[in-house]
Amino acid sequence: MFVLVNLKAYPCDPVAVATAADDVATETGVRIAVAPQAAHLDRVAEIGVETWAQHVSPVEHGSHTGSTLAEAAADAGATGTLLNHSENRLRLADIDASLRAAERAGLETVVCANNPRQVGAATALEPDAVAVEPPELIGTGTPVSTADPGIVEGAVEAAAAVAPDVPVLCGAGISTGDDLLAARELGSEGVLLASGVAKADDPRAALADLVAGL
Amino acid sequence: MFVLVNLKAYPCDPVAVATAADDVATETGVRIAVAPQAAHLDRVAEIGVETWAQHVSPVEHGSHTGSTLAEAAADAGATGTLLNHSENRLRLADIDASLRAAERAGLETVVCANNPRQVGAATALEPDAVAVEPPELIGTGTPVSTADPGIVEGAVEAAAAVAPDVPVLCGAGISTGDDLLAARELGSEGVLLASGVAKADDPRAALADLVAGL
Amino acid sequence: MFVLVNLKAYPCDPVAVATAADDVATETGVRIAVAPQAAHLDRVAEIGVETWAQHVSPVEHGSHTGSTLAEAAADAGATGTLLNHSENRLRLADIDASLRAAERAGLETVVCANNPRQVGAATALEPDAVAVEPPELIGTGTPVSTADPGIVEGAVEAAAAVAPDVPVLCGAGISTGDDLLAARELGSEGVLLASGVAKADDPRAALADLVAGL
Amino acid sequence: MFVLVNLKAYPCDPVAVATAADDVATETGVRIAVAPQAAHLDRVAEIGVETWAQHVSPVEHGSHTGSTLAEAAADAGATGTLLNHSENRLRLADIDASLRAAERAGLETVVCANNPRQVGAATALEPDAVAVEPPELIGTGTPVSTADPGIVEGAVEAAAAVAPDVPVLCGAGISTGDDLLAARELGSEGVLLASGVAKADDPRAALADLVAGL
Repeated sequence: MFVLVNLKAYPCDPVAVATAADDVATETGVRIAVAPQAAHLDRVAEIGVETWAQHVSPVEHGSHTGSTLAEAAADAGATGTLLNHSENRLRLADIDASLRAAERAGLETVVCANNPRQVGAATALEPDAVAVEPPELIGTGTPVSTADPGIVEGAVEAAAAVAPDVPVLCGAGISTGDDLLAARELGSEGVLLASGVAKADDPRAALADLVAGL
Repeated sequence: MFVLVNLKAYPCDPVAVATAADDVATETGVRIAVAPQAAHLDRVAEIGVETWAQHVSPVEHGSHTGSTLAEAAADAGATGTLLNHSENRLRLADIDASLRAAERAGLETVVCANNPRQVGAATALEPDAVAVEPPELIGTGTPVSTADPGIVEGAVEAAAAVAPDVPVLCGAGISTGDDLLAARELGSEGVLLASGVAKADDPRAALADLVAGL
Repeated sequence: MFVLVNLKAYPCDPVAVATAADDVATETGVRIAVAPQAAHLDRVAEIGVETWAQHVSPVEHGSHTGSTLAEAAADAGATGTLLNHSENRLRLADIDASLRAAERAGLETVVCANNPRQVGAATALEPDAVAVEPPELIGTGTPVSTADPGIVEGAVEAAAAVAPDVPVLCGAGISTGDDLLAARELGSEGVLLASGVAKADDPRAALADLVAGL
Repeated sequence: MFVLVNLKAYPCDPVAVATAADDVATETGVRIAVAPQAAHLDRVAEIGVETWAQHVSPVEHGSHTGSTLAEAAADAGATGTLLNHSENRLRLADIDASLRAAERAGLETVVCANNPRQVGAATALEPDAVAVEPPELIGTGTPVSTADPGIVEGAVEAAAAVAPDVPVLCGAGISTGDDLLAARELGSEGVLLASGVAKADDPRAALADLVAGL
């Protein structure tokens, strides 16, 4: 299982969460990555934890003020990037271009989608992985794996129908070890977490609990 | 072959083009539709020609000022809609929602895309048809079927890999009967036309020439 | 006072509301306009009521699939257009370009804004009028003129500071004659209405009540 | 004069340009700032040069994946931010919200605009400064101060008409000391530079030449 902790624009200390994630990953052998703000990539990557961008722009080098250049994210230590998160929905053509930008910069990719049909579409764009997150469950604490298991199974089927070897992650409301195991049962090869860790009083304990059952 | 004439925001007379299209469709038996501005749907549909919208918004009835409601387009006489034209690229989630809106209103759908990979993604969203239009050839008079036959064949393959029964149209630079036949040879079941008809001195002659070889 | 009834994407009968508005305008001498979906402009304008677009695109004639061309709205009978409604927020440069497009097509313009500062900015772009609508009150039935009179007065001051002769309208939650009089007291020269009329069981009675106190 | 060097998404070494800028600023006493990619803010700020963001998102702390949080830019060492660059045009409401976000994080602000009318609008939103950059001259090497002096004078007048104390910068095609002096003659209190420095073989020499006449 791959555990990706998305720090969004939360007022957490990215270095503290990254240190906790690095420790738990080292102790347990579970793959855990942290996705901070672009301006915090450097300091998170320095911890040694696997570091992801939350987004990269669909551009190449050039006149693109205010963009998030894939190469700049990679320079700062990112080794992967989320794309098309429901809080940052992209045009179809731009998901394609951002995927190519990420490949060019050597970044691994996870394209998010709202439902199985969109997961199928995302898979056709040839990312390294896809993730299904029902927007209505994000930030609720109600885990997608319990509240809507059909959407996870549907996403796994939809991805497999388009390309058999693209892993499917899931997200929204995941915070406990049981949620994680339930996600794995449904065919998910990883989870997207956010508030459950980033807003926890003790991010290390939250992550340790999460992966304890693996 | 399905011939869809997109009037974009051209300064042509939509009623004149629609009348020409209706006459040529009736005389030749070829399926020809005209896609005018939303504000011109009514007057084009009154001619009796098959009438399409250029776009519908991803919304249901409600508080959506400035939207193009699928039901309003249908009320005005549209029986189909383009979506995600390269001049009006949509977010992946919005293509999905606009497709569902169009279905709800009884509109047939063609989702446009720039390349085979995006055609595959569009196909996964379950439209009635997809269309490939390389943006760099739009409006050039250089037909995609000659300039880049591989992109049309690639689009047909990409769509078939996702769903075997979704017709593929192509567009960009199509203006002559030879272009149309070349497109059919490559597996395309229709073409998107725009300036070649809408800006022609004699739209009726342009359309008659176009379909003469079928 | 200018009363502009925005039909948004409501499931109302635009012809019925337009007929009611036309009758009340004729009987009372109050200026009342109706803004339907673009695809319904034709049928609303045919009633004889003053007809507005909900939006026009920042484009000139050309290759702009899915746009709402100002000239097409004018062709269909619109004599004015809203711009930058909070449900259709535009880029600053596009408000400017849409205003110039509307002028070119002979359409009167009202630019909406969320607060006095944005009203000042909108006024600098030289529209015919501006409107302040606090987004949090839209559709609530709580009238801006009562809930937040300071925002209306502030908008009137902000507009006057930039250009002394640009009328200020207000909207959000307006539905009764008292709301209208309160808006006038605060310096507003018109109101934007939507659900209060469009969703009323009897739009004619709703409008007649609204303007009875003028 | 304030000289702001925008590194956009150029393939330059941000540390090398920042070091050059810092040296020239120290030697000449001219205020020079460098605006790198968000992921490079940290390493540029460490040089000691005044560091700006190219953009900040109109959000507060919270669930905003892929945003550029003003507080994160400030954490990384930025002390100011561009907003609404013509390569990153924002909605009117979002310029307002991004300005408030920047204020909250203690960042100085420059809002860009295409023409005097939009400069007036930007000024009404209460930034620390505004900048006029005709999009058609960006990256051309043809300086706005020579090619279109009227637009700079018009911008100065438009800003002053709305608020008398907001400095006006100009940009597009500025690369030589003469361009800078011409901009000052027209009432500009600073310039935006990009390719003239970022793509120069010797950024230090380019900056030294630029400010030599001050």
